[in-house]
Amino acid sequence: MAARGLPRDDPSVNPRVERTKAHVLRVARDLIVELGPADLTYTALSERSGITRQTLYRHWPTREALMAAIVLTGPDVTYPHPGSDSRTVITGYLRSLRAGLSDPPTGTALLAIAAQADRDPGSTAALHTITADRRAALNELLAGANCQVSEDDFARLCGPIIYWLLIARGPVSDALIRDTVDAWFD
Amino acid sequence: MAARGLPRDDPSVNPRVERTKAHVLRVARDLIVELGPADLTYTALSERSGITRQTLYRHWPTREALMAAIVLTGPDVTYPHPGSDSRTVITGYLRSLRAGLSDPPTGTALLAIAAQADRDPGSTAALHTITADRRAALNELLAGANCQVSEDDFARLCGPIIYWLLIARGPVSDALIRDTVDAWFD
Repeated sequence: MAARGLPRDDPSVNPRVERTKAHVLRVARDLIVELGPADLTYTALSERSGITRQTLYRHWPTREALMAAIVLTGPDVTYPHPGSDSRTVITGYLRSLRAGLSDPPTGTALLAIAAQADRDPGSTAALHTITADRRAALNELLAGANCQVSEDDFARLCGPIIYWLLIARGPVSDALIRDTVDAWFD
Repeated sequence: MAARGLPRDDPSVNPRVERTKAHVLRVARDLIVELGPADLTYTALSERSGITRQTLYRHWPTREALMAAIVLTGPDVTYPHPGSDSRTVITGYLRSLRAGLSDPPTGTALLAIAAQADRDPGSTAALHTITADRRAALNELLAGANCQVSEDDFARLCGPIIYWLLIARGPVSDALIRDTVDAWFD
């Protein structure tokens, strides 16, 4: 993807550092599926990526920060467009969510964070960051449509797709997305 | 809870074995929250429960079978009633789902299975068993209401609650349940 939108003139963004982080996250996405989330250690990631453990810890001080970065960088899926018709924007967003979560590393990293959340406040905080980030992204796309989505709305729109892909483990049909959006608008 | 409904006359059900299994699952529920799912090993479970590893493996030959048993035995929550009014039955079912998944061991075990599913067909099969079992239970409650719930329906009804409790990590309000049920019926 083109670097459009990256803060090129921001002196805190070092292109070499960003390239290193992107390289490590690509390797981490391969390893989390290959080894399982429990065995994606900083040692394994350092060996495979050729980046020292010290550098890994500097970029991602905790495992849940690393997992959250895997979730939020996601695969290269078609990003939905902003627009003035809220139904079209939300449908596009949910199709993009489907594509993103159909990518095994993204879903596995999200589930690995969630499985630790009952005993680890850092994981709960990471989940709050991820869900707030994704809802803010949808609301930004909806800015021109005079429509904003609350936390409950977001659960009603995204919950069925997340349940199907991550728990029931089946394909999400276009009909499910359409019915979910229709039900929310009615 | 009373043993009403247990197949007491079934010669394959040995009360002593059932008591042992129930004891182990209670210990497993404590341990999965205390240690985290990755460290709930058969060794740890044997030490804490006083039951040999051989016996544990006989009852649950795989880790995902043990995790599925933790999910399906669940906590002692008020079980919903069957009835002739589908809206009342489904609302009762979703409140029971909320109570069950608000219990940390149940949600953690479900997420732990799901986090392994991309690389472990046994975990995917366990998820299919769990979701089919829960949907069948709802449809049994709905038998007198002339209403049955498809897989997509089940995703639309349960997805928002599962998303809130396990991923976004917030409380599910009665209003969310009501809005979800209303939207499905409309």
